[in-house]
Amino acid sequence: MPQLRDDYNVFAGHDLQRTKALADGVFSIAMTILVLELSIPILGTVHTEWDLWLLLLSLSPKLLIYFMSFMTLGIFWTGHSLQYTFITESDRHLNWLSIFLLMVIVLIPFSTALLGEYITFKLAIGVYWLNLLIFGIITYAHWHYACKMGFITQNIPDFKEIDKSIRNRVITAQIFYAVAALLCFISTYLSIAMIIVVQLNYTLAPSFRHRSK
Amino acid sequence: MPQLRDDYNVFAGHDLQRTKALADGVFSIAMTILVLELSIPILGTVHTEWDLWLLLLSLSPKLLIYFMSFMTLGIFWTGHSLQYTFITESDRHLNWLSIFLLMVIVLIPFSTALLGEYITFKLAIGVYWLNLLIFGIITYAHWHYACKMGFITQNIPDFKEIDKSIRNRVITAQIFYAVAALLCFISTYLSIAMIIVVQLNYTLAPSFRHRSK
Amino acid sequence: MPQLRDDYNVFAGHDLQRTKALADGVFSIAMTILVLELSIPILGTVHTEWDLWLLLLSLSPKLLIYFMSFMTLGIFWTGHSLQYTFITESDRHLNWLSIFLLMVIVLIPFSTALLGEYITFKLAIGVYWLNLLIFGIITYAHWHYACKMGFITQNIPDFKEIDKSIRNRVITAQIFYAVAALLCFISTYLSIAMIIVVQLNYTLAPSFRHRSK
Amino acid sequence: MPQLRDDYNVFAGHDLQRTKALADGVFSIAMTILVLELSIPILGTVHTEWDLWLLLLSLSPKLLIYFMSFMTLGIFWTGHSLQYTFITESDRHLNWLSIFLLMVIVLIPFSTALLGEYITFKLAIGVYWLNLLIFGIITYAHWHYACKMGFITQNIPDFKEIDKSIRNRVITAQIFYAVAALLCFISTYLSIAMIIVVQLNYTLAPSFRHRSK
Repeated sequence: MPQLRDDYNVFAGHDLQRTKALADGVFSIAMTILVLELSIPILGTVHTEWDLWLLLLSLSPKLLIYFMSFMTLGIFWTGHSLQYTFITESDRHLNWLSIFLLMVIVLIPFSTALLGEYITFKLAIGVYWLNLLIFGIITYAHWHYACKMGFITQNIPDFKEIDKSIRNRVITAQIFYAVAALLCFISTYLSIAMIIVVQLNYTLAPSFRHRSK
Repeated sequence: MPQLRDDYNVFAGHDLQRTKALADGVFSIAMTILVLELSIPILGTVHTEWDLWLLLLSLSPKLLIYFMSFMTLGIFWTGHSLQYTFITESDRHLNWLSIFLLMVIVLIPFSTALLGEYITFKLAIGVYWLNLLIFGIITYAHWHYACKMGFITQNIPDFKEIDKSIRNRVITAQIFYAVAALLCFISTYLSIAMIIVVQLNYTLAPSFRHRSK
Repeated sequence: MPQLRDDYNVFAGHDLQRTKALADGVFSIAMTILVLELSIPILGTVHTEWDLWLLLLSLSPKLLIYFMSFMTLGIFWTGHSLQYTFITESDRHLNWLSIFLLMVIVLIPFSTALLGEYITFKLAIGVYWLNLLIFGIITYAHWHYACKMGFITQNIPDFKEIDKSIRNRVITAQIFYAVAALLCFISTYLSIAMIIVVQLNYTLAPSFRHRSK
Repeated sequence: MPQLRDDYNVFAGHDLQRTKALADGVFSIAMTILVLELSIPILGTVHTEWDLWLLLLSLSPKLLIYFMSFMTLGIFWTGHSLQYTFITESDRHLNWLSIFLLMVIVLIPFSTALLGEYITFKLAIGVYWLNLLIFGIITYAHWHYACKMGFITQNIPDFKEIDKSIRNRVITAQIFYAVAALLCFISTYLSIAMIIVVQLNYTLAPSFRHRSK
């Protein structure tokens, strides 16, 4: 029944709006619940301004990890947004790759909370890295599948370069993340520092330059 | 006052955007708060990497149920999204069927948490299954009502097949879920395993095949 | 500077999309966090299926209130959605009326939690009713202002009837809610029962009938 | 490769929808989780209606701060919405300025909770003010960058006045916030009162008047 399939694919194009809306919802909530980790301890011992300073200081590792994870989610969202700038069609397999992507994104607040609580443990870095790795694998598969199925908008002259650029970005980032994770054998703080540096690099100096006027 | 009704129906078409937006919001939040169940116990007894391994291992049943419920919500969302691909009109009854659908979706994190906490209890499986069942009933009623009222887009040549396919999907899934629930009398883990297998089947091998290029 | 004002109003039309998106976000989150009230007590005393039955039974008042509040939010959302079906322009005053409306909606989970915890207290009913009342006042003011400023789409032949219908709905609902609240002096359960009955009436038998085919 | 850049910018225009959707998501969740601070203490000592009155009275400082923070987020959202009424193009730098803006917005519930818990502490006011200040700086940079890059819609006759009005608003608000923060050396309640007065002024008497019919 080829007609059914064709019709289905015609309507499935509208689904992309829903896919994006669901993703934006999940990303925004994941970003926002990161802050729930910064819960303020209610201590009977806070009597002076100085006591409150100390309490806030004790939150600083969690604040550091909050910024790291917000950047992680920002980078993931930017990548997701970029892919869907070019993707104009979809099928149920792409739909499910996209849902599994969200499943991994939702785990970021969990990995973040684990790292915030056990910042000096190699295993906490390992779990965080695993989360980044699985995201990288699914995000690559997502793009690869969309390209393979011809779900990409046709009117891009330099598609090859864009394609290469997206794939390279995922692979390069994963290499950096792996190196950062390995640094935990020296110090977990070193791992976190390197992840933040890598992320700041992607944040502040993206490979696509803005247009020159 | 037939004109009032007509006008209302003309404008009610725009409401569908809101209905979809509300649903995407509820789905994305329900998906994300599933992770809150994976709360990390703060134990004074975690001193070594090995202690943290044991702590994470103790979370593994909850992680299993997290994946199950994320797939549940993913399947529900895909179905919702599919129905609204064809639905182009609405009235207040469809609106309320859709809101009751959300009411049931929001209970999934509750059923999930109950099962995560009491994974060996038949009653916890029963509650989870009841949640799936009520969702199935409302989702069927929702589609049935939209068809009956002629709220479906007209330009589908194979509408009969699509209609049959959507109805069969709901009924088949519910039969599988009922069997899975009954398995709890042998073992609750068997129930969970079967639900996951059924869901993986829907996730990885949907009845609508992707288009052949 | 009349031109500035005109231009601003031209662009402010696009803002309506944002207003609706923000509202849908707030509604969907408020609906979803209602379920957080149904938190499952972790009791060391649950050893048998029967113990779990008793635990679930003890949650039943909260479940009742969950359904009531979900319907409350569903009714509020439907009303909001209906108003914005007709509203096609906006200014900063309408924007702020709409934000204050959200401020009141966000309090519903609070009032719900209070009532869930102190279900036999007249004051808890009073707070819940106050929440409904303030919502009613702002929702009326919101519609009244939009009408007064001519922010309503022009192509409605029966606008007068629609206008009257929207205003009457708010006023009638508030009268019923006030009576329900007063019933708390007999029994708080009676108040809750009446609110649910009123809401089921609005849910299942709306004043706008669906089109006859 | 100028073509790549041009093509990228053509598609990046669609990204604005995602940017707005993500922002609306983050704003709506941040607004809603403010209410989680109003958590109801479960006290065994509440036996009479009077006890519940006292309990609610003890929540009143938190309720005050809830209203202040909801207005803060409402003002921030209105400003964000206004900027994106005029912004029609984007690049990755604007994308990241916008993500950092969200990072600061998400911290508002944290600062609010801190202030709610330690309302008499100057440091809590200081943290809240810092949050407002950083938001002001990024929001100014965001607008400045969009103007500098020519990302603003061309068909605005009075652009200069609008531009000036947006910049002045940010600067004036920040001056008022700084003065309010300084008042904490007299009393933290005075700071909160002044912030609320400033915000009510922006809420009720905006600089853009609604159109005269």
